[in-house]
Amino acid sequence: MTVQQLDELTARVRAFAEARDWQQFHTPKNLAMALAGEVGELLAELQWLTPEESATVMQDPDAGARVRAELGDVIIYLVRLADVLGVDLVDAGRAKLADSARRFPVQTATS
Amino acid sequence: MTVQQLDELTARVRAFAEARDWQQFHTPKNLAMALAGEVGELLAELQWLTPEESATVMQDPDAGARVRAELGDVIIYLVRLADVLGVDLVDAGRAKLADSARRFPVQTATS
Amino acid sequence: MTVQQLDELTARVRAFAEARDWQQFHTPKNLAMALAGEVGELLAELQWLTPEESATVMQDPDAGARVRAELGDVIIYLVRLADVLGVDLVDAGRAKLADSARRFPVQTATS
Amino acid sequence: MTVQQLDELTARVRAFAEARDWQQFHTPKNLAMALAGEVGELLAELQWLTPEESATVMQDPDAGARVRAELGDVIIYLVRLADVLGVDLVDAGRAKLADSARRFPVQTATS
Repeated sequence: MTVQQLDELTARVRAFAEARDWQQFHTPKNLAMALAGEVGELLAELQWLTPEESATVMQDPDAGARVRAELGDVIIYLVRLADVLGVDLVDAGRAKLADSARRFPVQTATS
Repeated sequence: MTVQQLDELTARVRAFAEARDWQQFHTPKNLAMALAGEVGELLAELQWLTPEESATVMQDPDAGARVRAELGDVIIYLVRLADVLGVDLVDAGRAKLADSARRFPVQTATS
Repeated sequence: MTVQQLDELTARVRAFAEARDWQQFHTPKNLAMALAGEVGELLAELQWLTPEESATVMQDPDAGARVRAELGDVIIYLVRLADVLGVDLVDAGRAKLADSARRFPVQTATS
Repeated sequence: MTVQQLDELTARVRAFAEARDWQQFHTPKNLAMALAGEVGELLAELQWLTPEESATVMQDPDAGARVRAELGDVIIYLVRLADVLGVDLVDAGRAKLADSARRFPVQTATS
């Protein structure tokens, strides 16, 4: 089964944790800390690059693989945290984006 | 149009940025920093709670709304970063989970 | 009394927490989360700046004041965490720097 | 020479960077990212521990050594960032603490 949707990944991560009896460690506090740790590892892959180098990092086989791996870790902990909290991530993102659209309306230039 | 999939949210965030001419600010370095900033705000919502309190935080209308808002900010920057880098987030998560399954195999108890 | 040394700041932060009976919240986990939250706020002050703009941020009265405030929050939580753990921060930094000097020796160019 | 004060550590970190010609990489943005990365590694050492386990982590020789090493990395990048920005860390901490004392005055209970 290919994983095409976020909810499929969420289910797989849940099954992964339950199969190893790891739910006991998966309090929201712990998962938020783990998420921050993985974001830190992602930052570490980019921290010494110039903005331009960071824009082409995926072209470097080694650096690109590491960035992809860290993004993988980040999404895994994010979906797990959202799952444990019972929050729909995509819905939360959509709602926040609508908020931001109101706070930062597109300037309609007329001349 | 309801947003049901991560790629729809990704497209909306991309359109949001382009409509405001913000792509210039959206280097991978900057987006990674923004992601870390939002994860920091998420941690701030949980930092003084006990593990048990964190497990029921969504039942508190105010705290729950703030946690949902921060999760929304986190997923927005994560999909934007992945989009700019050209990385499929769900695919990266699936691959990393498979890695972890090999490194942490389920103990098969036989009796 | 002017605060001239890190240990004086550490003592002040300890007294601040004890006067408000906040030690109960100051487990190392919670303090580490708070530290990450404040580092996130620091990143947020720099995330949209170019590297050059970030180098001169302290010249802007408003942005500079916000950066100084965030650095203040970061050092406060860092000394508090180290204090609760019983770790001498400066000593730990000195030891890690010596480690790094071994791993990254200065190239002595001879010609 | 023993390092007894934060400014001595700051000078050593500056010399370390200059000896390796690394100032070019030490923009405030990059240093803030590196700081966040090291705080992430610190969180990773505590994320699966209970609050009680985190309170005694320094008693475990291996875990304690790793926590000390991460605190060392954090203070190194923090003093380097403050140095590059020209901010006095202890002074910034003192000022922020005074702020917080005003916002969170100690309740004087009278009965």
